[in-house]
Amino acid sequence: MHAMNQPRRAEDALEDLKAGLGAHTVLTGADVPARNCNDWSAQLPRRPLAVVRPVDATGVSQAVAACRAAGLPFVPQGGMTGLCGGATPEAGWVAISLERMSGIEEIDTASATMTVKAGTPLEVIQNAADAAGFLFPLDLGSRGSCAIGGNLSTNAGGNRVIRYGMTRDLVLGLEVVLADGTVVTNLNKLLKNNAGYDLKHLFIGSEGTLGIITRVVLRLFPKPRSTMAALCALSDYDAVVTLLGEARNGLGSNLSAFEVMWPDYWQVVTERVGVRAPVGSGHGFYVLVETHGSDEVADSARFQAWLEGMMEHGVLADAAVAQSHAQTQAFWAVRDACAEFGQVLGPHVSYDIGLVVARMDAFATRCKAALSAGIPDCESVYYGHIGDGNLHLVAWVPELAIEQQPKAAMDAIIYGLVRELGGSISAEHGIGTLKKPWLGHARSEPEIALMRTLKTALDPDNLLNPGKVI
Amino acid sequence: MHAMNQPRRAEDALEDLKAGLGAHTVLTGADVPARNCNDWSAQLPRRPLAVVRPVDATGVSQAVAACRAAGLPFVPQGGMTGLCGGATPEAGWVAISLERMSGIEEIDTASATMTVKAGTPLEVIQNAADAAGFLFPLDLGSRGSCAIGGNLSTNAGGNRVIRYGMTRDLVLGLEVVLADGTVVTNLNKLLKNNAGYDLKHLFIGSEGTLGIITRVVLRLFPKPRSTMAALCALSDYDAVVTLLGEARNGLGSNLSAFEVMWPDYWQVVTERVGVRAPVGSGHGFYVLVETHGSDEVADSARFQAWLEGMMEHGVLADAAVAQSHAQTQAFWAVRDACAEFGQVLGPHVSYDIGLVVARMDAFATRCKAALSAGIPDCESVYYGHIGDGNLHLVAWVPELAIEQQPKAAMDAIIYGLVRELGGSISAEHGIGTLKKPWLGHARSEPEIALMRTLKTALDPDNLLNPGKVI
Repeated sequence: MHAMNQPRRAEDALEDLKAGLGAHTVLTGADVPARNCNDWSAQLPRRPLAVVRPVDATGVSQAVAACRAAGLPFVPQGGMTGLCGGATPEAGWVAISLERMSGIEEIDTASATMTVKAGTPLEVIQNAADAAGFLFPLDLGSRGSCAIGGNLSTNAGGNRVIRYGMTRDLVLGLEVVLADGTVVTNLNKLLKNNAGYDLKHLFIGSEGTLGIITRVVLRLFPKPRSTMAALCALSDYDAVVTLLGEARNGLGSNLSAFEVMWPDYWQVVTERVGVRAPVGSGHGFYVLVETHGSDEVADSARFQAWLEGMMEHGVLADAAVAQSHAQTQAFWAVRDACAEFGQVLGPHVSYDIGLVVARMDAFATRCKAALSAGIPDCESVYYGHIGDGNLHLVAWVPELAIEQQPKAAMDAIIYGLVRELGGSISAEHGIGTLKKPWLGHARSEPEIALMRTLKTALDPDNLLNPGKVI
Repeated sequence: MHAMNQPRRAEDALEDLKAGLGAHTVLTGADVPARNCNDWSAQLPRRPLAVVRPVDATGVSQAVAACRAAGLPFVPQGGMTGLCGGATPEAGWVAISLERMSGIEEIDTASATMTVKAGTPLEVIQNAADAAGFLFPLDLGSRGSCAIGGNLSTNAGGNRVIRYGMTRDLVLGLEVVLADGTVVTNLNKLLKNNAGYDLKHLFIGSEGTLGIITRVVLRLFPKPRSTMAALCALSDYDAVVTLLGEARNGLGSNLSAFEVMWPDYWQVVTERVGVRAPVGSGHGFYVLVETHGSDEVADSARFQAWLEGMMEHGVLADAAVAQSHAQTQAFWAVRDACAEFGQVLGPHVSYDIGLVVARMDAFATRCKAALSAGIPDCESVYYGHIGDGNLHLVAWVPELAIEQQPKAAMDAIIYGLVRELGGSISAEHGIGTLKKPWLGHARSEPEIALMRTLKTALDPDNLLNPGKVI
C-alpha cells in the first residue's frame, strides 16, 4: 500500500500496469523498441523508461493513472513520423503508443463520415474511403507510416489544402484522454453542432500536450472523377500571383493544387535529381496547377480553355498539359523530387515557413541573399504551396555532416526574416521541441501567455508531454 | 483613491470610463437604448446598468478594466440578432456593444482575405467582397442587422454550409479582448499556420463567454459564375438519402445547397403562406438542390444530365429546373417561406436540431407523433439543411399566445428524442440561456466539465457573460 499524495516507485506503478493491461502491453528496459525512441527529425534517440501500448481509451486512461501515481511524465506516440520532436520521449518518461489502436470502426455513407482508432495509418484510411466510394483527401509522403492521431496532433497539411483544408478541417469528432485520465468522448458526426464549446480544436494541432486523441470521426468527400494537371512556366512573381487569382476564379472549387517552384529548386531537381522536365529551363518560376473535378470531358475542355486564356493574356510563358494519368504523375514527380534531396544535396536543413502570398518572393530573394552573405558557402532552394501561404526552403553547406550544418545561424537568419515579414515559423510541421525557441518570432507574448493558461488548466501537474510547444 | 482589491462603486467606475472614453461612449439610466436590452429571442427585455460603445480594442479593454474594478458583470453585444439570449444583459450588468467598431480595414486580394472590425454588419462584408471580385459565402436572414463578431461568437451557419462550411471555417485570424482586459492579436492570414496552439477556435462559437472578439480576418472565395437550382419531389426518405449521395458524387464540390422539406412543411407554405409551388403536391419529400459553379454552359449541361439520370433511375418522382435567376429565387422562396410562419401560424416555437442524416426522418416521424400525443392540439412541421445534419422544426398550439405555448413540454419531448437519437440540441443558434438547461442532452458530463475548466481558466472571476452556455 502507498500513502495518498506520496509518489509511487516507478517500477511498482509499471508492474501494476503490466498486471492490469497484460505484460505484452508494457515494455521496459531492453524491450523498448527503437521506433519509440525518436521521430523522423534528425535528433539523437532518447530511450523512455517504458512503452505502454494500450488497445483502447480505457487502457490509455489506466496508463495515465499509473504515470500520475508515480509522477512520471508521459508522451503520446503515433507513427513517429513528426519532424519537430513532438512525440520524442525523454529519459525517465513513459511513451504511451497508440500503435495497437488501429482500425476503422464505422463508415456512415449517408453522413459521409468515418470513425477510426487514432493509431490507424493514414494510408489504411485513404484505402478504406476509396473502397467505400469516397475520398479522404489528406495526403502526405509518410502516408504508409503516419497515424491519423498524429496527423491530428500536428494538424498535418499536405498538398491539397487549397481544396480540402488542413487536417483540422477534415475532423468532426474526437475521443480524447485528458492529462488527469478522464475520457472525453465527442464522436460528433454533424457538420453543424453548436451545443456548447467546440472542444476538438483544442486537441488538434496542440502536439499531444493537452490530451491524448484515441478515436476520430473524419469527413469523407466525393471521389474526383477527373484530374487535370499542367506544368506552367512564368517570367516573374507578379505573373504567379496573377495566375493564382485566375486559377481561383476560372477553375473555381476544382483547384486542388498550386505548387510553386523557384528557379533554384527547378535547377536542382532537373539537373541534379535528374527528373524529366515537361517545360524548358530558364524561366523565372514554375507552377504545377491541378484540378479535381467530377466530369472528365467538361473539366478537360474547361482546363484547356483556361490555360489558353492564360497564354493569350501573357500570364504564362510556357505550359505543358498532362494527357494521361502517367503524365500527371510525371508532373508531380518534379514537385516530389524534394524527397531525393538527401541523396543529391547531402545533409541539409528543411524549413516550413508561413507567409502571406504577396510577400513570398520578397522573402525568398532576401533569405537566399542573407544566407549566402551570412554563412560561408551556404546554398538554399525555395518551393511551396503558395495558395495556402506555405513556403518550404532547404538550406545547406555542401560537404558538411548534418551535425556540422550551421543550423543555429540558419535559424537566426530565416526566423528573423519571418518575424520581420509577419510570417509563421511553422506552416505544417508544428513546433515540438525543435522550433520552440523561435515561437516568439511568430506569436506575441499575450498569445503565448494564453497558450500557457490553457496548458496549465488542462495539465496542472505538467506531466503530459511537458516542455513541448511552449 | 480606492484600496486594492476593494471593489469600486459602480457609479465611480462608469464616471471614470466616461472621462476616459468620452461621455457619448458610456450610456446609463434612461439613455440606455432599447436595442441593447434584448436579442431576437422572445424574452422580456433586461436593462443593463450601462452600455459602453468603444471604438477599438483598447477601448474595450478599458471598459473591461472598469467593470472589473467595480466587480460588474459584462456582456459583449453585436447586432443583437441572436435567438438564445447569448447577448442579453441582466440588471446590474454592463453591455459592451461593438456597434461603433464597424468597417473594413483591408482586402488582400493575393491572399484572398478581408480584415474587418467585429461590429461590421454581415451584409456590408458581403457587398465589399462582391465589389472586390470575391464571394464571402456566409448568409443568413438577419444579414442586414447581424454583426460579424456575433456571427463568430455563435458560429453561425446558414444555407450554404454544405459547400463553404460554418462561420468557423471562414475565419483565419482574430483579435480578442480577454476577461482580464488583455488584448490578444492574432490577425493571421495564412491557411496553414501551425506555430503553437490554434487560439481562434476557443472564441468562435463560445457565445462571448471566453473573450470579446474585436477584429476578424475572413477568407474570401471565388465568385460563382453560374447558379443552377432544381426543386425535386421524392416518394420517401430513402430516396432523399440516395439523392444526397448522388448529388455529392455527381455535382461534386459545386453542390451549394440541399434543403429538404417534409410534406407538412410543404403543405403550410403552399396552402397557408401561399407561395407558388414549382412541382405538384402529394409527394413524400421535397428537396431544393443548388450548385455554384464557374462555367455557365458546362454547369448547366451537367446539372440537367444529372437530374435526368436521377429521374431515369427512379430516385426522383418529379423535378422543376430553374431557367432563370428569377426562377431560382422563386424556388428559394419556398424554402424561405418559413420566415412567414409568424403571420400564418401565429405564435410558435422554433427548434434547431442536429442529427445524423440517416436518423432525420425517424426523428421527424416520432417527434410529430409524440408532440401530437403528448400536447393537446400541438402541430409541428419539419425542414432543414440535411446534408449538414441540421433539421429545423416549428411547433405550436393554434390560437395560444407565445407565453401560453407549452414550451417546457415541447422542449422535454423534442430534446428527449434528440438525446435518444444521439443528436445535438443546437445545430446553429447556440445555447445562450434558453437552451442551457438541456445542454446535458447533447453533451456528456466530461465534456461539460472540460468546458467549465476552460471557462474558469479564462475567466476565473466569472464576470464575462456569466451563466451563459454552461
